[in-house]
Amino acid sequence: MNNFSFQNPTKLIMGRGTIAELGKEIPAGKKVMITFGGGSVKKNGVYDQVKAALKDFRTVEFWGIEPNPAIETLRKAIALGKEEKVDFLLAVGGGSVIDGTKLISAGLLYEGDAWDLVKKGSSALTVPLATVLTLPATGSEMNNGAVISCHETKEKYPFYANFPVFSILDPQVTFTLPAHQIACGIADTFVHVIEQYLTKTGESRLMDRWAESILQTLVEIAPKIRENKEDYQLMADFMMSATMALNGFIAMGVSQDWSTHMIGHELTALAGLTHGHTLAIVLPGTMQVLRKEKGDKIIQMGERVFGVTEGTHDERIDETIRRTEAFFRSLGLTTRLGEEHIGMEIVDEIERRFTERDVHFGEDGLVDGKTAKEILMKVL
Amino acid sequence: MNNFSFQNPTKLIMGRGTIAELGKEIPAGKKVMITFGGGSVKKNGVYDQVKAALKDFRTVEFWGIEPNPAIETLRKAIALGKEEKVDFLLAVGGGSVIDGTKLISAGLLYEGDAWDLVKKGSSALTVPLATVLTLPATGSEMNNGAVISCHETKEKYPFYANFPVFSILDPQVTFTLPAHQIACGIADTFVHVIEQYLTKTGESRLMDRWAESILQTLVEIAPKIRENKEDYQLMADFMMSATMALNGFIAMGVSQDWSTHMIGHELTALAGLTHGHTLAIVLPGTMQVLRKEKGDKIIQMGERVFGVTEGTHDERIDETIRRTEAFFRSLGLTTRLGEEHIGMEIVDEIERRFTERDVHFGEDGLVDGKTAKEILMKVL
Repeated sequence: MNNFSFQNPTKLIMGRGTIAELGKEIPAGKKVMITFGGGSVKKNGVYDQVKAALKDFRTVEFWGIEPNPAIETLRKAIALGKEEKVDFLLAVGGGSVIDGTKLISAGLLYEGDAWDLVKKGSSALTVPLATVLTLPATGSEMNNGAVISCHETKEKYPFYANFPVFSILDPQVTFTLPAHQIACGIADTFVHVIEQYLTKTGESRLMDRWAESILQTLVEIAPKIRENKEDYQLMADFMMSATMALNGFIAMGVSQDWSTHMIGHELTALAGLTHGHTLAIVLPGTMQVLRKEKGDKIIQMGERVFGVTEGTHDERIDETIRRTEAFFRSLGLTTRLGEEHIGMEIVDEIERRFTERDVHFGEDGLVDGKTAKEILMKVL
Repeated sequence: MNNFSFQNPTKLIMGRGTIAELGKEIPAGKKVMITFGGGSVKKNGVYDQVKAALKDFRTVEFWGIEPNPAIETLRKAIALGKEEKVDFLLAVGGGSVIDGTKLISAGLLYEGDAWDLVKKGSSALTVPLATVLTLPATGSEMNNGAVISCHETKEKYPFYANFPVFSILDPQVTFTLPAHQIACGIADTFVHVIEQYLTKTGESRLMDRWAESILQTLVEIAPKIRENKEDYQLMADFMMSATMALNGFIAMGVSQDWSTHMIGHELTALAGLTHGHTLAIVLPGTMQVLRKEKGDKIIQMGERVFGVTEGTHDERIDETIRRTEAFFRSLGLTTRLGEEHIGMEIVDEIERRFTERDVHFGEDGLVDGKTAKEILMKVL
């Protein structure tokens, strides 16, 4: 076990009808800016539930935070929030709306351009924010991270600010999600776990098992969700898995990787692919290229998550990678760059960017531009 | 999944040499009362590490919080703390020292006798407290619960107050613990999980697996710890398991029981048995008497924790109960009341007390005085 420090102050309120509790959780007298994505919440009833719960508050609405929230949009939200002197933020949406709202919460108390904060990587000074989650995937509802894009420069970077004060998760709101969004959410959750798990063996028996528990749960529920995405218990299991996959609970004392995510962010920035989908493409490549370093852990994963117990060391690694890719395909996702018409020019650009930034991702710092290219070459 | 609300603000600082971080974590200028148990911390170096870390703080020491902390002792600590006008508490010890210090933290801001607070069951007004844990067992270092005894009346009740602001866990401090204390700590941890797990099936796939992960880890490490209790990784796994067993992480959206604990508390109050040890005796009785209601979950536990997959429904339940008792015996603990010279007079007194208080413990409220007696009759 590595030394660690853990703290997560977010209050999680989960279950049927919990959006109605909003009014009790926000301190009286606050002026609330509610942030939204594209408008699906008006169709599935979430908007009406939120407005009813906040009837005693002064509210301002900001609409249009897009997937992979862009600084260009968030600047407008920050300007509106400053003008309206809001002192509480409520993000109603998926990870993109929540991520974007984290930058807004820092931007409201910053004089300059909020892209400075993204470039700096973090901000300690923020307006309190809470969330109503509508799409299980990123875990942003219970962590202090965000990922912000810049359309102008095609850049996408992580940014760390504040934990939501509280987050409300009603599994019923997921019943109307499109199948592709659910698939991407499951892939995102799966790879969040992998980034905190598929590193070294023997660091923590309990963290290993907790990580495997989420993977096992996803593998168990994914085909059932494909059959019936209005099963409350299934969607509750999915929603809880997504939140627990990235709230620090499985990261205590263990090494972390995140190179698959960093390559995935570039694929989104350069080719516009949905985040979870990029991970489904990149991960099998990461496993192939780092099969020597991660081999023992891949074998542990294969045995405990997919029941792979036969064969030589190398055969078990191969079979586990094959099962991982097959799992993503079973979600209905493609797993090869070619299937998404992504070719060498983008691979080369990612190598160039990583090399220019002199990055060394992964638990051993092995993933630089050259290795990222190798990884992508495995999944052409 | 049942609706739930979860929040745990405690900062967990874990690893080698982490006691040295104490000085950074307590706000400057605080006057700190440090509370201790019997003095083992002077032999194992913890006392010296704590004092060195707090050299820039004004401190007062209170010694002698006993196992099953008693109101008679805690009143003295509260009087000292009021006299010295302390405004921060640091509990250095195991669950008893931490539990006792939670009552002190409420008692310091209460005008009357602190036993009133215990009878009331909770207190919202408290002085901030932090902990340095020396004995993994109760989970008190990361929850807001405590159990307080009264010697005069031989009573013992749960009390809820504040979460520690932070808790420091250095697995190295456990190397000098006596084998019996480790055994009781493992039994306590095991049964904490059971109380949040061995109820109904199908409420949460993930919470079930997280609970089973702790049980699997304990079953795996217990015999290894018997062989070598100075193995850092083993003791880190034990310490983390104990904390995660009772910090709310495995309780989200699932039913809870706690009847084994309530019967166990009476055995401690009436016969002086160590808390963890009482649970090892009571649990097999609880499983026998409630085998119909808990049957499906007992079978799930048998399969996933002990690998019991053969036999009829009833045979699998029997085998799982047998394995559970055998696990406790493998720790070096007795599992029958007769082995501890506890006879019918105490069983009858527990029945009388539960009936008088009109209690209905357990996930379905089935454990009253009569059922408690049945449970104890199974483990005579």
